[in-house]
Amino acid sequence: MPSSFSDKNKTGWHATILTLFPKMFPGPLGFSLAGKALNSGIWNLKTVDIRNFAQNKSRSIDDYPFGGGTGMVMRPDIVDTALEAVADRPGPRLYPSPRGAIFDQSWAKILAKEPGAVIFCGRYEGLDERVIKARNLKEVSIGDFVLSGGEPAAIIIMDALIRLLPGVLGTTTGLSEESFENGLLEYPLYTQPRNWNGIIVPETLTSGHHAKVKAWKRLKAESITRERRPDLWEQYMKNNDKSSSSR
Amino acid sequence: MPSSFSDKNKTGWHATILTLFPKMFPGPLGFSLAGKALNSGIWNLKTVDIRNFAQNKSRSIDDYPFGGGTGMVMRPDIVDTALEAVADRPGPRLYPSPRGAIFDQSWAKILAKEPGAVIFCGRYEGLDERVIKARNLKEVSIGDFVLSGGEPAAIIIMDALIRLLPGVLGTTTGLSEESFENGLLEYPLYTQPRNWNGIIVPETLTSGHHAKVKAWKRLKAESITRERRPDLWEQYMKNNDKSSSSR
Repeated sequence: MPSSFSDKNKTGWHATILTLFPKMFPGPLGFSLAGKALNSGIWNLKTVDIRNFAQNKSRSIDDYPFGGGTGMVMRPDIVDTALEAVADRPGPRLYPSPRGAIFDQSWAKILAKEPGAVIFCGRYEGLDERVIKARNLKEVSIGDFVLSGGEPAAIIIMDALIRLLPGVLGTTTGLSEESFENGLLEYPLYTQPRNWNGIIVPETLTSGHHAKVKAWKRLKAESITRERRPDLWEQYMKNNDKSSSSR
Repeated sequence: MPSSFSDKNKTGWHATILTLFPKMFPGPLGFSLAGKALNSGIWNLKTVDIRNFAQNKSRSIDDYPFGGGTGMVMRPDIVDTALEAVADRPGPRLYPSPRGAIFDQSWAKILAKEPGAVIFCGRYEGLDERVIKARNLKEVSIGDFVLSGGEPAAIIIMDALIRLLPGVLGTTTGLSEESFENGLLEYPLYTQPRNWNGIIVPETLTSGHHAKVKAWKRLKAESITRERRPDLWEQYMKNNDKSSSSR
């Protein structure tokens, strides 16, 4: 990708990624919806190679952990200098880590309303605890699994928020029925052909009866959520207890 | 990337990705640990462009949803034909979707022990429900957020499992202390310099007293887990109730 992506005079939502692998970006974010939005200036990308801030001859940015253990830890002084170099870039400072708060759709919405974000992609075992605190990095986890580094997590966070930026999706009405928008998983989807290998689309959906279709969708969304995600279902029941008697 | 990546005679763990954006792959998986493992044959990648299976002139693979609603749905006949074309590729058939079961480290471990996996990356609103059932696709969610498509999720799943393949990490001992391996988040990490801006590494870690260091790590991992992730903490307490009295 051309170096113009690091031009800080670009418009739109400001993505700043600190990484040891700048070539991973924009990666999948350079295609489809996100790629078009990048090219049209809805968001811009500045990548910063953390290795540029190494101070010794071997250009190392990590060292052995105190107290032993396998793997290396990123040095606080290097991380601090790298973050200082992007002090002018707007938005919260995020550090993807399995120890972080769990990223979800509401967090994506909050980020989309910020002017941008700075994401520090850790590698090896992770960052020295002191610089996480000193720089007030917000630790964010995309799930209970371990990745090779923060980069794939940064791509997920970016992908989720970019599609929420104004102008990225053709219409905003598409957002209101998708999973999590009402605390439920989405109902099952059907399209052409109506008869596929002898399996017919549920009759209600082809009935043209709007109220019945709406009720069907709600019922299916509820039953799928209850069956697959008791945790979301419990939350949904709590939230709807006061406002309605939908059950 | 050269087309040799789709050579089915390649060795190693067999990744098969069905997508409308084959150029997104290997993407971030072409660098660092995963990239080296790809080049050395620890895993191999076959990408299949779903659009190749479109049957009409406009090459469309989607259509309007029955019952209305915004967004398009991928046609069951197209999806079915695309999956049939990779019938010889081994492993479970995964379909990343917010409606799926939640992906976690134990799932990554199970996948790493399979000969491979076939991942169908949906776009638009998603797949017609009939083909999900007919093909017995395993719906997998990497979290409670909505992505532009299945591709970023596929990258996460692959990244998590590739680092678990034999030979990818230099040593397997690094795995035993990381987050989730014992049901806990990882303890805080410290490295050089010992005195950074007047903040000193916790004394225990530089004491050289192995038993104390071990106890410190466990205590910190427990307190971080309890504070940040009551859900994991509750599970941890249950699991350790019978086998030990660590608290």
